[in-house]
Amino acid sequence: MLLSQKERDTLFVLFGAGGDLSQRLIVPALFSLYQDELLPPRFHLYCVGRSDYSDEALAAHFFEGLNRYSTGSVSKKQWHEFASQIEYLQGDILQDKVYDTLNKTLRKKEKQWQGTAEIIFYMATPPSLFKPIASALGNAGLAGDREHTRIVVEKPVGHDLASFQEINQALSSVFEEDQVFRIDHYLGKETVQNILAFRFANPMFEPIWNRRYIDHVAITVAETLGVENRGIYYEKAGALRDMVQNHLLQLLSLVAMEPPVVYDANDVRNKKCDVLHALRPIPTDAVDVLAARGQYYAGWINGERVRAYCDEGGVAPHSNTETFAALKLHVDNWRWQGVPFYLRTGKRLEAKVSEISIRFRDVPHKSFPASYGLNEQPARLVIQIAPQEGIVLKFMAKEPGSQLRLRPVNMRFCYNEAFETRSPGAYETLIRDVMLGDATLFMRGDQVESAWRQITPVLEVWEANPAVDFPNYAAGSWGPESATMLVAQDGKNWLAPTLSKKGDCVR
Amino acid sequence: MLLSQKERDTLFVLFGAGGDLSQRLIVPALFSLYQDELLPPRFHLYCVGRSDYSDEALAAHFFEGLNRYSTGSVSKKQWHEFASQIEYLQGDILQDKVYDTLNKTLRKKEKQWQGTAEIIFYMATPPSLFKPIASALGNAGLAGDREHTRIVVEKPVGHDLASFQEINQALSSVFEEDQVFRIDHYLGKETVQNILAFRFANPMFEPIWNRRYIDHVAITVAETLGVENRGIYYEKAGALRDMVQNHLLQLLSLVAMEPPVVYDANDVRNKKCDVLHALRPIPTDAVDVLAARGQYYAGWINGERVRAYCDEGGVAPHSNTETFAALKLHVDNWRWQGVPFYLRTGKRLEAKVSEISIRFRDVPHKSFPASYGLNEQPARLVIQIAPQEGIVLKFMAKEPGSQLRLRPVNMRFCYNEAFETRSPGAYETLIRDVMLGDATLFMRGDQVESAWRQITPVLEVWEANPAVDFPNYAAGSWGPESATMLVAQDGKNWLAPTLSKKGDCVR
Repeated sequence: MLLSQKERDTLFVLFGAGGDLSQRLIVPALFSLYQDELLPPRFHLYCVGRSDYSDEALAAHFFEGLNRYSTGSVSKKQWHEFASQIEYLQGDILQDKVYDTLNKTLRKKEKQWQGTAEIIFYMATPPSLFKPIASALGNAGLAGDREHTRIVVEKPVGHDLASFQEINQALSSVFEEDQVFRIDHYLGKETVQNILAFRFANPMFEPIWNRRYIDHVAITVAETLGVENRGIYYEKAGALRDMVQNHLLQLLSLVAMEPPVVYDANDVRNKKCDVLHALRPIPTDAVDVLAARGQYYAGWINGERVRAYCDEGGVAPHSNTETFAALKLHVDNWRWQGVPFYLRTGKRLEAKVSEISIRFRDVPHKSFPASYGLNEQPARLVIQIAPQEGIVLKFMAKEPGSQLRLRPVNMRFCYNEAFETRSPGAYETLIRDVMLGDATLFMRGDQVESAWRQITPVLEVWEANPAVDFPNYAAGSWGPESATMLVAQDGKNWLAPTLSKKGDCVR
Repeated sequence: MLLSQKERDTLFVLFGAGGDLSQRLIVPALFSLYQDELLPPRFHLYCVGRSDYSDEALAAHFFEGLNRYSTGSVSKKQWHEFASQIEYLQGDILQDKVYDTLNKTLRKKEKQWQGTAEIIFYMATPPSLFKPIASALGNAGLAGDREHTRIVVEKPVGHDLASFQEINQALSSVFEEDQVFRIDHYLGKETVQNILAFRFANPMFEPIWNRRYIDHVAITVAETLGVENRGIYYEKAGALRDMVQNHLLQLLSLVAMEPPVVYDANDVRNKKCDVLHALRPIPTDAVDVLAARGQYYAGWINGERVRAYCDEGGVAPHSNTETFAALKLHVDNWRWQGVPFYLRTGKRLEAKVSEISIRFRDVPHKSFPASYGLNEQPARLVIQIAPQEGIVLKFMAKEPGSQLRLRPVNMRFCYNEAFETRSPGAYETLIRDVMLGDATLFMRGDQVESAWRQITPVLEVWEANPAVDFPNYAAGSWGPESATMLVAQDGKNWLAPTLSKKGDCVR
């Protein structure tokens, strides 16, 4: 792949460089881009943090992480070349001094390079620091010109609607909206990006992608992991904030959006925003019938005994935090009126699987008698996001034999069969897009605000009314009974995930 | 599979028992049904022929064929059990005597069985004998009652419209239409039978199965074989009669037909007949632009040098017989107006492949710029009939990588992956259907007549105007240039067959 003309000298400033995210995802992604020659020819990485590191010690810390988390091979020679571009700026992010130093350092580099560089501020810090950092950057005159300076923030942006608005206001008092890149790493996944290509680069699905042919949509993001060592964080988050507000609502937007006029940041995000705007608000008195929450108790995952959520480190013994959340949503527009969208996500579920199931309505007329097996009616399209990466169309076919009997079968598309090139990780894709200034795969402020607005009533009701049945699902199950009831009351079901049998669609 | 209640004692009379068809296909199919316990408990096979066989010699002749043509293992014990039901009646089919003997023999067996048996007359003879046999059966009082007597005729039924009508009239002066089972073994193939299940037992294809979404349909039945030892027969037939009049037009009917109210012989065949009825007639002065013919000269097939058609045994040195035929047809109804159906078939082509390609129209609006690769526009559905057995949906997907690039990929359904049970051969399926009295997969007289009517102008023009460019395609190519022009003049192409790379969809 050729370097785009857009790529210019780049100064990349990483706040929270000593943290887990930097070591585990951001620096490995930068190094990967470097290996693939996708970094600009002149690139420098400034790492800002409180800890006491020399440039070498920090590089060693990153290298250790690289070896631990990287799936590919790490060339020592290449790492040394890359690491020579890393510079550590130690300082207290809440004090002005570090920003003065930063300012001088950046200007010096630009002078050395004899030109204006692209400057990227990457906030790999807790969200509580977004506001002070943004303000300090503004005060130090570092917000720069609109075209060449960008700021990247990690989710969660805020804890609820009010705190999001507060942070967002702080960001926008310093930066223009098109300078702000809000990361939802789900949007960087190849399988997620492909949803739009699948829908809008092909003529045969869009005609049936509406209320006339689709019965309901089920989105599942299930993890087998528990909260691991993030108990303290998770206690304040919960599944609804941690997953639904961002990932699941983004997936819903991609499935439900209208075709963009052109595939660009503005248009794609407008169309996604239209979907969030069309979501039917959940009245507080309907939270009970439109939402379900769960918390896992001890159980078995892959043959291993795992403990209950309330026994995890950093978790209150009678915690009200949900580790499972399910919602029933409606998109109130012409295309989707009457088609329920069921969302569910949880920790310690039976399998790790992320997928979108689109269930078609039954055939309008049964030419084949029910005795032929048509009652099963399995017609659905499954967009497999992880760990399987593919698309499955489930339909009825004639079973071989002299009698006419119908049986459900699968038509499959697998990424790993179709493409031999390595898929870039989500962070590689997204960081490169930041450098190119392409915001298509990032969340705009109004999207995030709509998403918060949508889940706020549920958050409030759940907080005000602690769950009386927690813990209510076994680790290793598919979640609480209330989630089953959420769909069963409509005569639907969650559409069992298309789990891999031979691991055929897993990279 | 349980024996159906419909199955009753059956007397199966095979005319032309000494011929190739009986040895190669019919008796092996009957034996297969026997092995699968799909023959009625009381079954007897009367073989009628001119040659001098003892029952044992005939059985040995069949057994030899079984070993030569059967793909499965042949149990000697089972064969002996089966062969004990075979009885040879030697006689001249054109003389009354053999029918008297037959009559007595059948009645005697019924008396022995103490009841009325199903009687099936199977004409595995040249079509010239259909008429005299039918008349003789009628004269001998063997046409029997409508419910319990059936007659099976092999294609070709006639040589042109007039001779078909003559034979058909002879058949219908003795038998009712629903006693006559006209075999087109293509209709017994699992993949062909599945076309209706695919279309009408699933809700997602029918909405786009029309002129609004389909650009054109291409049906290819390509053989690598030449005329082998059938030169004398083939000289009088040619590709149009031998393949298009029956197989290809039947495939077209299945693809284009409206949904049946119920899946039964009457309704399915009515709907298929509607399609043939809607075919736009080919005016004699348009044969040049709507049809193409070819004859192969020497060439290479799979690394072997093969001779020209005109050098095959039994073929005239300056033969005008076409070994390749292509047609452009239109179905003049609301669903298909403006959608061309291209049919082609030929011997000594590059690959053995039978498939139906349904090319969708381009996306109505390109959200993705052409630079992203969308110009390829490959969206099509391929129904693979042989040797691959499956369904392939070709669509555009995002190529992995940080840039958005689209590339054509395949979604696949393979019979051999989906079903582990052995598929019955077409003859097994069809013979069993005859015994059950289910005519769904057989051609009704009006269908055959329509098909003849459709190709008659082409036959006549080709006969009256010998080809001046014969031979005009190399063995091992995809046929003559005129066939390419037939579609190229519409700005289309034949849609390269989806040849197997790994043999993954081949049983």
